[in-house]
Amino acid sequence: MSKVRPTIADVATRAGVSKGAVSFALNGRPGLAQATVDRILAAADELGWRPSNRARSLSVSKAFALGLVITRDPAVLSSDPFFPAFIAGVESVLAPRGQALVLQVVTPGEEEAVGYRRLAQDGRVDGIFLSDLRHDDPRIDLLVELGLPAVTLNRPEGSSPFPAVCLDDRPGTIAVVEHLLELGHRRIGHVAGPPAFVHATARSDAFVSALAEAGLEPVAIEVSDFTAAGGTEATRRLLALPEPPTAIVYANDRMAIAGIGAAHQAGLRVPSDVSIAGFDDSELAEFVHPGLTTVRADPFGFGAAAAQTLNRLIDGDGEVPDVELPPARLVIRRSTATPASQ
Amino acid sequence: MSKVRPTIADVATRAGVSKGAVSFALNGRPGLAQATVDRILAAADELGWRPSNRARSLSVSKAFALGLVITRDPAVLSSDPFFPAFIAGVESVLAPRGQALVLQVVTPGEEEAVGYRRLAQDGRVDGIFLSDLRHDDPRIDLLVELGLPAVTLNRPEGSSPFPAVCLDDRPGTIAVVEHLLELGHRRIGHVAGPPAFVHATARSDAFVSALAEAGLEPVAIEVSDFTAAGGTEATRRLLALPEPPTAIVYANDRMAIAGIGAAHQAGLRVPSDVSIAGFDDSELAEFVHPGLTTVRADPFGFGAAAAQTLNRLIDGDGEVPDVELPPARLVIRRSTATPASQ
Repeated sequence: MSKVRPTIADVATRAGVSKGAVSFALNGRPGLAQATVDRILAAADELGWRPSNRARSLSVSKAFALGLVITRDPAVLSSDPFFPAFIAGVESVLAPRGQALVLQVVTPGEEEAVGYRRLAQDGRVDGIFLSDLRHDDPRIDLLVELGLPAVTLNRPEGSSPFPAVCLDDRPGTIAVVEHLLELGHRRIGHVAGPPAFVHATARSDAFVSALAEAGLEPVAIEVSDFTAAGGTEATRRLLALPEPPTAIVYANDRMAIAGIGAAHQAGLRVPSDVSIAGFDDSELAEFVHPGLTTVRADPFGFGAAAAQTLNRLIDGDGEVPDVELPPARLVIRRSTATPASQ
Repeated sequence: MSKVRPTIADVATRAGVSKGAVSFALNGRPGLAQATVDRILAAADELGWRPSNRARSLSVSKAFALGLVITRDPAVLSSDPFFPAFIAGVESVLAPRGQALVLQVVTPGEEEAVGYRRLAQDGRVDGIFLSDLRHDDPRIDLLVELGLPAVTLNRPEGSSPFPAVCLDDRPGTIAVVEHLLELGHRRIGHVAGPPAFVHATARSDAFVSALAEAGLEPVAIEVSDFTAAGGTEATRRLLALPEPPTAIVYANDRMAIAGIGAAHQAGLRVPSDVSIAGFDDSELAEFVHPGLTTVRADPFGFGAAAAQTLNRLIDGDGEVPDVELPPARLVIRRSTATPASQ
């Protein structure tokens, strides 16, 4: 494809700075020396850089809609309770304002950028929620080029010109591990989510460091997929180990609830034979038997805060700061207890 | 408010027919005598009736988006697994075509029509999914007036010019009751969904008729709200009856899974003390303990079929017939068994 318009990469090369710095300067975000900002703006001007015309028209004619692109196989879209709850939280802000949510699902492996370009077309949305941040995520630069306001769910690894709404998963995961250690567990296993997702690796990393603090190593880490079927399989593998764990920490409730079922199927009692802890505090967690010890991550509040922040940005409410949500906190129920044996 | 433009009600009055008949005629749907169609079209012409200009422009400039208005409190939007799975099914058709789904949530009690008018504005969507049909649903006429193509999820009670995609809940519910009767249960209770929804009353009605076939009456019907908390409360009330049921049929899996937890909490074993059956075959049903006997309603397939039908209508694929999906079918797992006592 021939490149007609200069990209922010071209501006970065000309100004001798990173693409992230260009993003910051072009979006008027603070954090750069004024001389750097001036050099970048001069380079952009010389190259004739501009956001897409269509995107620029957004600031004039509002779409009264916000966009969320989800890169998942549609068939597994409903398998994690995060998105339904997050979307419900977004809607709690949008519904009273009469705003719509434009949902674009992109099958993994397809040209994901197309999904974002489509939403930018014709002023279809006024702003974008950037979820499921990945390592070296190329979408930050893409959104800058498209001229679309955005909030990121959690902070990307590189620099970003967009406000971030952050929910730190680590304190909750660390609290789960400390709770199990206090109960006397020493053989603890983990069922992780897909490592491509920053939030999945954040939970795994926190799990490993909390054990390391106590001079311990995980019995095993089973990488799974956030589904009930995946949680069942991972649990069976952990329980079949020569020295199975006395406690298992799951990266979400759905896998953990399936884990309780798998333990019962294997003839084990929860929590006396094996303690089980989840992550989410999803609706069923309180009502299964035994009630699930878990981490209350409040995806509903996350969605509401993200929508409020994005609306502030769109409304031109001056400088919009990052939002740090209260960290996920431990909810102790009956699925965890002192281990019967060591 | 002064009424500037004639409505289909005005056309119906002038032509001496029902509003439904006007809808059929104006949308070119078959089923009316040609003389009636002629009379209606003449009345519409004399009154200067026309669909909104904005809506009419839809047929020229495609939005490449479909709309779903959900009338729920956003806070409970994620509490029923139907919508996440339905939306996933819709997306399985939309994603490969690059279409977006525009989701508009309207809080119950607000002016719902506003939500539909908003989507009709500016060609924001090419068509609408009409869900959660209610008794005497006013939205059929509204969509006709807005000139928006639509499919209804199941068939409305009155006449409708729109194709319906139908999933009959009744055979599945009847199969559950017959299964419990064959096991020897005679005292059977039901936890129903909110009666405002056609699909909730369809399930309750099927439950009552299947028992009546066997010359029995329900022990009790507890009206609940499809949530885990509601299912827990309803189960407690049923189990506290002087003559509690030996089996409970729930209108969705979430309430049923919470019901298993509530039974265990009450010191009862499932299924030996009380059999429990759900409806949905949601992802966790197979993986809880004991595995939940339920009805596989396939909301994913429902969403996919609805999206295909709506796209055929939008693409102008000639006459688009109603779609009758394979009826929900019984899935027997371990949560139902012969009652220990009568």
